[in-house]
Order: sequence, then structure tokens, then C-alpha cells
Amino acid sequence: MRIALDALGGDFGAKPNVMGALEAVRDFGYEVILAGDESVIKAELKAAGKYDESKISVVHAPQTINMDAHPARECRDKKDAGIVACARLVKEGRADAMVSAGNSGAAMVAALFGLGRIKGIDRPAIASPMPTRRGVALLVDAGANADCKPLNLLQFAVMGSIYSQIAYGVESPVVGLLSIGEEEGKGNQLVKDTTKYIRQLGLNYYGNLEGRDVHTGMADVIVCDGFTGNIVLKLSEGLARTMFGMIKDGVKKNPFALLGLLMAKPALSKIKDRTDPEVYGGAPLLGVEGPVIICHGKSGPKAIYNAIKISARLVESKAVQNIARSMLALKPVFEKLAEHKNEAAK
Amino acid sequence: MRIALDALGGDFGAKPNVMGALEAVRDFGYEVILAGDESVIKAELKAAGKYDESKISVVHAPQTINMDAHPARECRDKKDAGIVACARLVKEGRADAMVSAGNSGAAMVAALFGLGRIKGIDRPAIASPMPTRRGVALLVDAGANADCKPLNLLQFAVMGSIYSQIAYGVESPVVGLLSIGEEEGKGNQLVKDTTKYIRQLGLNYYGNLEGRDVHTGMADVIVCDGFTGNIVLKLSEGLARTMFGMIKDGVKKNPFALLGLLMAKPALSKIKDRTDPEVYGGAPLLGVEGPVIICHGKSGPKAIYNAIKISARLVESKAVQNIARSMLALKPVFEKLAEHKNEAAK
Repeated sequence: MRIALDALGGDFGAKPNVMGALEAVRDFGYEVILAGDESVIKAELKAAGKYDESKISVVHAPQTINMDAHPARECRDKKDAGIVACARLVKEGRADAMVSAGNSGAAMVAALFGLGRIKGIDRPAIASPMPTRRGVALLVDAGANADCKPLNLLQFAVMGSIYSQIAYGVESPVVGLLSIGEEEGKGNQLVKDTTKYIRQLGLNYYGNLEGRDVHTGMADVIVCDGFTGNIVLKLSEGLARTMFGMIKDGVKKNPFALLGLLMAKPALSKIKDRTDPEVYGGAPLLGVEGPVIICHGKSGPKAIYNAIKISARLVESKAVQNIARSMLALKPVFEKLAEHKNEAAK
Repeated sequence: MRIALDALGGDFGAKPNVMGALEAVRDFGYEVILAGDESVIKAELKAAGKYDESKISVVHAPQTINMDAHPARECRDKKDAGIVACARLVKEGRADAMVSAGNSGAAMVAALFGLGRIKGIDRPAIASPMPTRRGVALLVDAGANADCKPLNLLQFAVMGSIYSQIAYGVESPVVGLLSIGEEEGKGNQLVKDTTKYIRQLGLNYYGNLEGRDVHTGMADVIVCDGFTGNIVLKLSEGLARTMFGMIKDGVKKNPFALLGLLMAKPALSKIKDRTDPEVYGGAPLLGVEGPVIICHGKSGPKAIYNAIKISARLVESKAVQNIARSMLALKPVFEKLAEHKNEAAK
């Protein structure tokens, strides 16, 4: 198993990437290819002490992507950016999967341009794990596509369902469509049009979910456009943080409550961890022709370690091939949908 | 001050409505007109004991709106439904404002049909108060319009800003556009098109907000389409509840932590109250020709009491007239926008 890692990606530079990679090498025996500025990576490796040198290699890729410029052009022109090098390593079969905590827009573009889409998939999507009271739910799309058509949402539902089986072992994932109002037919035009076709996909379809259902664990896969999904994702992160802040503020004024909270701290920390996106390994970009994990920019070594682990699971479970096979099987459904396209995709 | 109350509206029937009304009569000296089934209301009034009979009147309106049917037709045909009667009382000048905890869809339709829109307003919107770490932010639209055009969002921004001044005394409310990515120009097509015009409104415009900013108090008014807004609103309610549930689950297994949490309980309860939508009085439907407050279906007496108080503030502050005046002043801007309509509203 060889994983290409965008070694300088993320807000903290090479350190958490290199540390996470070395831990993954040690625990799982994977090979990790570190793509980025060689001198920076080698300095980090040196600082890290002893490691299995046969499992670690470096690909020198010193360029940086400027996201204020045209991302697609940047990714095309800067062949020696870490993230672009990772995609190339996968494309050329020199790596089995890629992981990046760099700018997620750049990672998406690099992966899409470098690897291409799975046949039948219109738009790849990010499947972000969300903590729920029962475990984890997948939010698809968590931000790759701000504007979507019904066709996109239907494909997100298929890909999310496959990934839920692969990553969390859910046998028959419950798929819900995020909307306003539980009743079928309630929602915006996109949801209404998607609802017309979603039962034809053969999924374990639940129906509409409301915002309040996202974190209850009612569904394993929550399907929405990337605009809504990204707001849901960031709102959840932010609200959890705000609530812990409010608890701190409230308790400060009351020494008795403060003592109480200190006593409850170990239990609360566990919840904080569960609601903290940084402990998750990352989210796969589903629909591209290769296993890609996109991590939070603030990923620490643990997140990178877990992302490498998840990327390997994508490889072992043949996630890409599974999605491709499903898309082939559903071809008649999507073709029928395309006939109605003018009506449904408006 | 005379407030029309949909006396049987909400999930708990007449009791919380009548109790909230009587408390408001006692504390503020308002008159409250209870619209609904007379015998049910009179039984509740009798059970409530002594009250100032000169301040309470009953309008017999025994019909119920069937929301599975066509809401507009239902509201037109059932002139003797409580919510329809409330709108008529305001329209005829027999009440100054109306309050309902009934089905919010029905309340919107009844208010819109009964009172009409303020001149220049395309679509009325719900301005829902959201707890933040610093105080309260208004979410506009919280669910009245699932699909919006840039024109709608611009008008929501104007109305939200006016209501923030009125209801919370914010002198120059900070207005943000809910999107994905902070940078101007990031978002879906609706946000991008809205961004082109929003600076012309003369508001204290902040720029894009992300989901994580909603609860920080960074903005006083958070503008979005009603699909996104309703998901944000219900997600926030749901996540707060889920987190308190997780805290309970986590602490149960640890007696030491449980004792600690019991000690911290008074401080935590305060936060729970702040994050609990039921303690808020309700949300105004802005843009209709009369003060309308729509309450949560699960409103208790306290919520109804506060809703009546807020509805009176809408009347005293001349919210409707203020919005009408702003729309008149902004007429040239919106006319210019209408010229670009084909481009912006696609």
C-alpha cells in the first residue's frame, strides 16, 4: 500500500504531515510518498528521529498553488506543486491513494484534473463524516459543488451509500435528503425534482430530513447540495465550539459550578473530541478515478494518521471500482433521467 | 394596544395561549383578542381564575386549516379559522398586531392574503432570533421562501436591519450574507448575484459569513434564502439538544462526573435556556402590511407572553411604516436592479 501525501499541505506546514505519516508507517506498514519541498521535508524527517527508511520516499514538488488566481489554471501550470504531484503519482500507478490537508479547493481541482471522473459521474462530491448521538453520518456534498442539479444529488446519494458501507460497515445505509419539512414534496425546487427520481436508485431511502435530524443519527447518509452542506458542516463545528465557550463563560461566574465542571471534565472532553472535526481523518472526494482524502486545514498528526488509514481502506475496499460498477448498473435510470433533463434540471 | 392571538394555535391547544395572554394583559395592560373556538377558550379562561375582563375578548373562529390541502385555498375558504380571523382583525383595524403559534405555513399564507405585502416587497420573510455568544442575531429568511432570487435576499437584508434596530436596539446592525468561503465572490450563484448589488443598499454590510460565524455574534443580521435558513435554524436547535444529550450520556457512566455536572447544573441550565428556541417569543413575518409574530409550535405560556410583548414593540416602533419608507427610499436601487433582472435573477 503506497499513499501519496501532500507533505506541506495544511495550516501547520510539514510537521503534522510528516509525523502523521511516520506513525502510519510504523503502525500499518504502509509506504508513504511525501510530495513537497524536499529540503523542508528532509529537515522534518531528520527531526523526527529513527524511522523505516524503506517505507518513506520524497518527491520534490516545491511549487505552491495560488488560490486567488484561477485554480484550474494554477493546477495545470504548476506541475511541481505538492498536491498536483500527488494526483500524478496516483494517475501513474506509483501511489494507490492520495491525502491532502492543503486548500480543499486546490485539492479538488488537482484530483479532478489529474485523475478524471469516474464514468457516469457528473460532479465529484466530498463526503464529510458528522458526529451524531449514535455514531457517524456522512454529509454529501460537504462543499465541492455550490450549485447542483437533481442529477448531482442522485449521484451523491449513490456514492454516499457505497462509502458508508465501506468506511463504517453499515450494511444498508439509510439515505435522507436534507430539506425543510418532513413531508415528501416539501423543500426547494432542487429537492422536489430530486425526489421524483431518488426511489429508482434502489437505495435504502428514508425521505426528507430536517436540520434537526442531522445529528440524531436518524440517517447514515445525508444528501444535499454543496452550498447547504458546507454551511451545515461549518455551523456544526462552530456551534459546538460556541456552546463549550458559553459553558465556560457561564461557569466562570460561579465557583461551585466551576468545581463541578472540572469534575465532569473527562466526560466532557470525550464529547468535545467527538464533535471536533480535527480528530476525524478527513473526507473522501468521491467520484474521481482514484482514492482521494481531503483533510481539514488544521489537521494535526492524528488527523493525518487517520486520513492515511482511511485512504488505505478506500483502496482495499475498491471504492472507486464499486462506484463505477454502480454507475454502470444505474445507467438506464440516469439515461431516463437525462430524457427528462430539461424539466428536472431547470 | 390590541393584539389578536390565534388562541388554539400550536401543539398544546388553548392553554399556553390563554395563560400567556392573561400574563401579558396583567403585566403590560394590553388588550388581547382571542380568536378560536369560543367554548374551548371560555373553558380555559374560566380555569385560569380572575382576570381583567375588560382587556380580554373572544372572537369565535372554530374552523381549522388543513395543511395537507392547498394552504392558500384553505385560508381563503375558511374565514372562520383562528389564524384567518386574526389577520382580518388587523386588516380591519380592530387589532394592532397578530400572534400565532399555529402551523407557520398557514400563518404566513393567512397573513399574506389577509394583510397584503408592503409596497415594493416581493416576498415577506421570517426573521428568526438566533442565540449567539454575545447576544442575539437575526436569521432572515428562516423558512418562508424555499427558492429565492437576489432581489429577495436584498430586501431581506433591508428588513432584517430595520428589525434589528427595533427589536434589539442595535444602532447600525452588521449585515452578513451567509455563504461558503469568506472571500467576496465565493458562494452559490444566488449569493454571487446578490453580492453585486448589496453595497448599494446603504447598510452596514460585513460581507460573506460562513456557517461557523452564525453563532459567534459577528453579525446582527444573517441573510440567506429560506431553505438554507430553515436548515440552519433547525440544525442549531437540534445540535444544542444533541450535545446536551451527549453530555448526559457521557456523564452517566462516571459518578464523579455526574456529581460535577449536578454542581454545574444552574450554570448549564442558563445556557440551555439561551439555546432553547421556546424561550424566545417568536419571529416576525417581515414585509406584510401589519405586525405579525409567528411562534414555535411548541410555545409555552412564556413564549406566547413574549411574542405578545414583541408584537406590541413592532406596533410602537412602526416597523411596517419603517420598512415601507425604506423601500420607497430604495426604489431607485431596486428599479436599477430590475433592469439587470434577466442577468441577476436567472
